Amino acid sequence: MIGSHIDSVPAGGRYDGTVGVMAAIEVADALQQSRTALRHPLEVVIWMNEEGGLIGSRIVAGELRDGDLDAVAVSGVTHREGIVRLGGDLTRIESAVWAPGRNAAYLELHIEQGASLDRDGLEIGVVEGIVGIYAWDVVITGEQNHAGATAMVDRKDALLAASRYVGAVDRIVRAEGQAVGTVGRLSVAPGARNVIPGRVEASLELRSLDEARITRLFDTIQRETAEIGAANGTTFSFTLAQSRGPSMCVPAIRDAVRTQARALGRTTNDVPSGAGHDAQSMAHVGPMGMLFVPSVAGISHSPWELTHPAQITQGAEVLLQTVLSLDANPPSAESR
Amino acid sequence: MIGSHIDSVPAGGRYDGTVGVMAAIEVADALQQSRTALRHPLEVVIWMNEEGGLIGSRIVAGELRDGDLDAVAVSGVTHREGIVRLGGDLTRIESAVWAPGRNAAYLELHIEQGASLDRDGLEIGVVEGIVGIYAWDVVITGEQNHAGATAMVDRKDALLAASRYVGAVDRIVRAEGQAVGTVGRLSVAPGARNVIPGRVEASLELRSLDEARITRLFDTIQRETAEIGAANGTTFSFTLAQSRGPSMCVPAIRDAVRTQARALGRTTNDVPSGAGHDAQSMAHVGPMGMLFVPSVAGISHSPWELTHPAQITQGAEVLLQTVLSLDANPPSAESR
Repeated sequence: MIGSHIDSVPAGGRYDGTVGVMAAIEVADALQQSRTALRHPLEVVIWMNEEGGLIGSRIVAGELRDGDLDAVAVSGVTHREGIVRLGGDLTRIESAVWAPGRNAAYLELHIEQGASLDRDGLEIGVVEGIVGIYAWDVVITGEQNHAGATAMVDRKDALLAASRYVGAVDRIVRAEGQAVGTVGRLSVAPGARNVIPGRVEASLELRSLDEARITRLFDTIQRETAEIGAANGTTFSFTLAQSRGPSMCVPAIRDAVRTQARALGRTTNDVPSGAGHDAQSMAHVGPMGMLFVPSVAGISHSPWELTHPAQITQGAEVLLQTVLSLDANPPSAESR
Repeated sequence: MIGSHIDSVPAGGRYDGTVGVMAAIEVADALQQSRTALRHPLEVVIWMNEEGGLIGSRIVAGELRDGDLDAVAVSGVTHREGIVRLGGDLTRIESAVWAPGRNAAYLELHIEQGASLDRDGLEIGVVEGIVGIYAWDVVITGEQNHAGATAMVDRKDALLAASRYVGAVDRIVRAEGQAVGTVGRLSVAPGARNVIPGRVEASLELRSLDEARITRLFDTIQRETAEIGAANGTTFSFTLAQSRGPSMCVPAIRDAVRTQARALGRTTNDVPSGAGHDAQSMAHVGPMGMLFVPSVAGISHSPWELTHPAQITQGAEVLLQTVLSLDANPPSAESR
């Protein structure tokens, strides 16, 4: 099975996901045009709602948890409502689940979305694994008050506390290393120029290949926010919104990608994936691996996202050769 | 002329403005019921859109500036559109302007909105003057990017820069003293949990009885934000959105309020007004003064705003006696 996703974040780019789908279609087309017979059936998969939490691939992997479909997506409706709106039948979701062992191998080509390949001038990234992602909804409660009449010393400013929280996340995550931490969402109530903010709703997202590191980071952030709150009379609450452990790519597929890339004259490096991918859902269904093509300047989830056409072609060629290699020598069950 | 305003901030309280309007109506009613003849005509005024920048009182004071009516109010439409929607005739705005000297005296009762009277257990605040208010729209530009794939060191996070700005405003204003500074509005784009913010729009508001202090504070804030931006690859821009110098209450009215309050057995203190008031527009039309009743815990611009009924009654009694006193001994032209 080869493929990727076609959905996008708001104001995202044109390469994230789509490049892997187009490459998979090109590989299938090339095999058909060259009348190549494979030992295994080849499937091309196009995932839906990867950006909203790998919803499509988790459904078929049987990895959906209670309440996942009730979460409100960035479109403003729940996943449940979105599926119905697109003509899906919620009563048949269970029947969509694939049995473990269904796939002899799953292989996904994707843009790196980070700067490491581009910075080092390399052509193909052999993915080691996909980081775990934990996310929380954060609510900071202070006291809404008049911006002119309330002395600085009398304020319980929720936005001031939130600002210290954003700074603390950056500092704590940098000090730990081998992880990233992001506050991407933050809204202020009531949000008028002449009113001291009484409430802030924000997000927290932590990613690492090492799950224990994520736990340690969150503990430190919680401890520091308690101190921030105590200092200006505000309170913090954290509600877990997403938790997904890291997924490692199987060594047999990593080796096949590396060998085929080098046979084609491509330069390679072993890289972690900081982004989540449908491949991690597919790890529950069979051996999984990924390869990356470079992202210019590491820019992604942005209209400035770019991978040059020649780099995409190189990736598709490695994908084709790796499919042929894995078809001839599929990963053993133990490697899973 | 006595009165106040009846509009409110979003999610505001029930006392800000309304208390002064009700007290003025009660004073007029008491004078009529007691068949008291005054030397001067008494007018009760009910201002509109005080919270949006003293729009109503500035129109009659001739203090409207080019572009003021084109600003977008918190309702989402411009003041110009709002006036038309309410049945106003924009072509006749000029004819609404009052000549300087029209008012023998303007006196406004208002809730303090700060904690000083309540904290000290005092009943009436004799207002010294109204602070100047300067406000800016602030735009912080970074680089939108993928929250998983972008290393901490490669980020140009607009929200991280914005957070440092919010902290700097608090620190700089506290260090200066005799002023307040607030960031009440802050919105993040694109605002998704898994995207590094590329752009933040925020506000800045500075208030002080000393205009030079406001200028000094803004210079320091601009200098520090330039450093904040240089440190993480973001840029700040400030656009002046509001500027109004401080207004002092005339000594003759301050003395009359203090004398009448004490004659009624009330405890008093001289206090500055950290909030803006229509009285400062009226300073252009004649002698102006204000008196405050306490705000419980200093809470205002909030549903928790409270002034006890007995405190409002005390304020209305002082307002009545001060009207009688000023009618007998109006402030001289020189005191203006």
